[in-house]
Amino acid sequence: MIASRDVGAAVVAAYRVRVAGGEDPQSRALDIAREQTLEVPSGAAPPDVEERLLGRVLGVHREDADGEVFRAEIAYGHELFDGSLTQLLNVVWGNVSLMDRVRLVGLDLSDAVLDGLPGPRFGVPGIRDMVGGVQRRPLVSSALKPVGLGVDALIDIAVRLTRAGVDVIKDDHGLADQATAPFRERVRRVSDAVRETNHRAGTRAAYFPHVTGPVDRLAERVTIAREAGCRGVVLCPALVGLDTVRVLVEGDCGVAIMAHPSHAGTSPNAEGGIAPDLLMGTLWRLAGADAVIYVNARGRFSWPLSACKAVNRRAREPLGSHLPAFPVPAGGIQAADVAHWFETYGNDTLLLIGGSLLEASDVEAAARAVVDAARRAGDEGSA
Amino acid sequence: MIASRDVGAAVVAAYRVRVAGGEDPQSRALDIAREQTLEVPSGAAPPDVEERLLGRVLGVHREDADGEVFRAEIAYGHELFDGSLTQLLNVVWGNVSLMDRVRLVGLDLSDAVLDGLPGPRFGVPGIRDMVGGVQRRPLVSSALKPVGLGVDALIDIAVRLTRAGVDVIKDDHGLADQATAPFRERVRRVSDAVRETNHRAGTRAAYFPHVTGPVDRLAERVTIAREAGCRGVVLCPALVGLDTVRVLVEGDCGVAIMAHPSHAGTSPNAEGGIAPDLLMGTLWRLAGADAVIYVNARGRFSWPLSACKAVNRRAREPLGSHLPAFPVPAGGIQAADVAHWFETYGNDTLLLIGGSLLEASDVEAAARAVVDAARRAGDEGSA
Repeated sequence: MIASRDVGAAVVAAYRVRVAGGEDPQSRALDIAREQTLEVPSGAAPPDVEERLLGRVLGVHREDADGEVFRAEIAYGHELFDGSLTQLLNVVWGNVSLMDRVRLVGLDLSDAVLDGLPGPRFGVPGIRDMVGGVQRRPLVSSALKPVGLGVDALIDIAVRLTRAGVDVIKDDHGLADQATAPFRERVRRVSDAVRETNHRAGTRAAYFPHVTGPVDRLAERVTIAREAGCRGVVLCPALVGLDTVRVLVEGDCGVAIMAHPSHAGTSPNAEGGIAPDLLMGTLWRLAGADAVIYVNARGRFSWPLSACKAVNRRAREPLGSHLPAFPVPAGGIQAADVAHWFETYGNDTLLLIGGSLLEASDVEAAARAVVDAARRAGDEGSA
Repeated sequence: MIASRDVGAAVVAAYRVRVAGGEDPQSRALDIAREQTLEVPSGAAPPDVEERLLGRVLGVHREDADGEVFRAEIAYGHELFDGSLTQLLNVVWGNVSLMDRVRLVGLDLSDAVLDGLPGPRFGVPGIRDMVGGVQRRPLVSSALKPVGLGVDALIDIAVRLTRAGVDVIKDDHGLADQATAPFRERVRRVSDAVRETNHRAGTRAAYFPHVTGPVDRLAERVTIAREAGCRGVVLCPALVGLDTVRVLVEGDCGVAIMAHPSHAGTSPNAEGGIAPDLLMGTLWRLAGADAVIYVNARGRFSWPLSACKAVNRRAREPLGSHLPAFPVPAGGIQAADVAHWFETYGNDTLLLIGGSLLEASDVEAAARAVVDAARRAGDEGSA
């Protein structure tokens, strides 16, 4: 896409637009450019404001054979922004999010915008360090669930997963602060159990508790997690607001952020919304997510492989001076398929496999088989 | 829909599901119920947990002649929740938000859930009090825009709108903290100008500045607004996260919240997402919005009249002990049409008309005509 620096813009945004009923794609692009900036009819703004502030349609190109789907690239000037993430989102995906048949599919952000966002504090290298410095293989994550289990039962699963050599053990995002496993007790006791098991078994599992909850108690939850020895947490950006992720990260919260897509409302197959790769791989990463969970192909959701690969690519690609984030495919991965996924997605992948292990008669053995597959996939086995 | 109390649930949620390729609607409903609760395959949870925690499909009913669209009502038990708004959203619209062809269309919330959320602190009666106790007519709002204008130019518009008798003068949501009209200076000077004009002209306009911005500076912005004499603010729940609205309101921030739909990503015509009436009229209201802006029919967006009326109905309907919120139709309302909209939507409407006034040769006269139409629509003219 067109680079923002080449057109002197703060941001160039690419939208995929489907036209219907004889709409003119060029005029739809102009409508978006106006809606996202001046939001007044042509002629209602002073000419100098119209000249400087109106979004500029750089090009509209057909994307399909039928002439129904177009890609429009729009440049937004520096004066529209104020350095905040909320205003960045407001300009690139504000009122246009209420229009039908428009999706945000690409962003080229100027250095000024990129430098103003924290990006991952840990990222791929930091999470690798956390789990023993494993460099040359994909990582394996699994989940403590289901909601409704008490802390003892969650500990039982955590101990088995730790012994099996799982790298990151995370709370299910359904575990909040319910009476069955209250947050504070759960985090302390599970963290203790994982640490003790690591000590005994010589493993390096990291436990990431789920901290999503009232935003005015989020800092407290992160502190509880950190003080319990956790080096990462699971957080749902769409439930707390993406800017809340930024605040945690810029506040040096001291734990890695594994972002979970609950409530994110994105799908590769929808005509609207922000494309999943851009939302999770770029925007969540820029806000500070060190790992981004998405729903894998062949799982419980109907995401095609190309969409999964696109998230991986965005999470890992060069992006200003920001670290890469771990892409985390999840959502119904089968234990029998993991070698395939490791081969397909490569080393810088943190595979999350939950339910398929929990339904095994021997959870520990099932998890160990996944870890072994990860070792075989990398070149660590021969090191 | 089925009442949560009648089935002993915390929440009953209604989803509209479109089936494709021979899918069985009942099994799609069961998939949603499992995804939103246990999120493990059948048999992987202990039987007592499966019995108590799994979402319960209460019914699946066909909604169209072709047998493609179904409504599924699912009951969620009290044990899934922890009293937080984030967990409420996580359960009713969490991972299911990543599925295709599913939309959240209804909620029946138990008293326990309703009582745990703040709802509007001002609502319809409080906003009426703010603007002079006007009881028997619709209210009129207009916007200061476009972005790029300096504070002097914004004041010029604000003074004209105040003199015209506009009830609520709001910042455009594109006004953030840009150098052209920095937040603090803008809020203080516009508020002063509106107050002085009210004093001279005998009007009662309220100025609601736009406070969306970094969430760690939101309380500061609200304080600046309140100290400048503002009795309300404009805030975009989707940009800051809905729970951040709740925090402001429960913290007795002292100003009314006019919620703006930027970034909300909802449309009446989409198959996915949360239906606009439920999102804006119920969920935003429960989080504490006193007025909810939506995009009107016949405007710049393709929302049908039925969707607009549905937002109105939700915002005003009985909902536990919560006050009604003002529905605020907006987004391209034409000055020539306002009498029609007042008649169509009734007295408890806060009509927002912006660009159509700003393109008039005499903004003040154009705005006064809208206010006059509002007076004629109510029975205040004859009082």
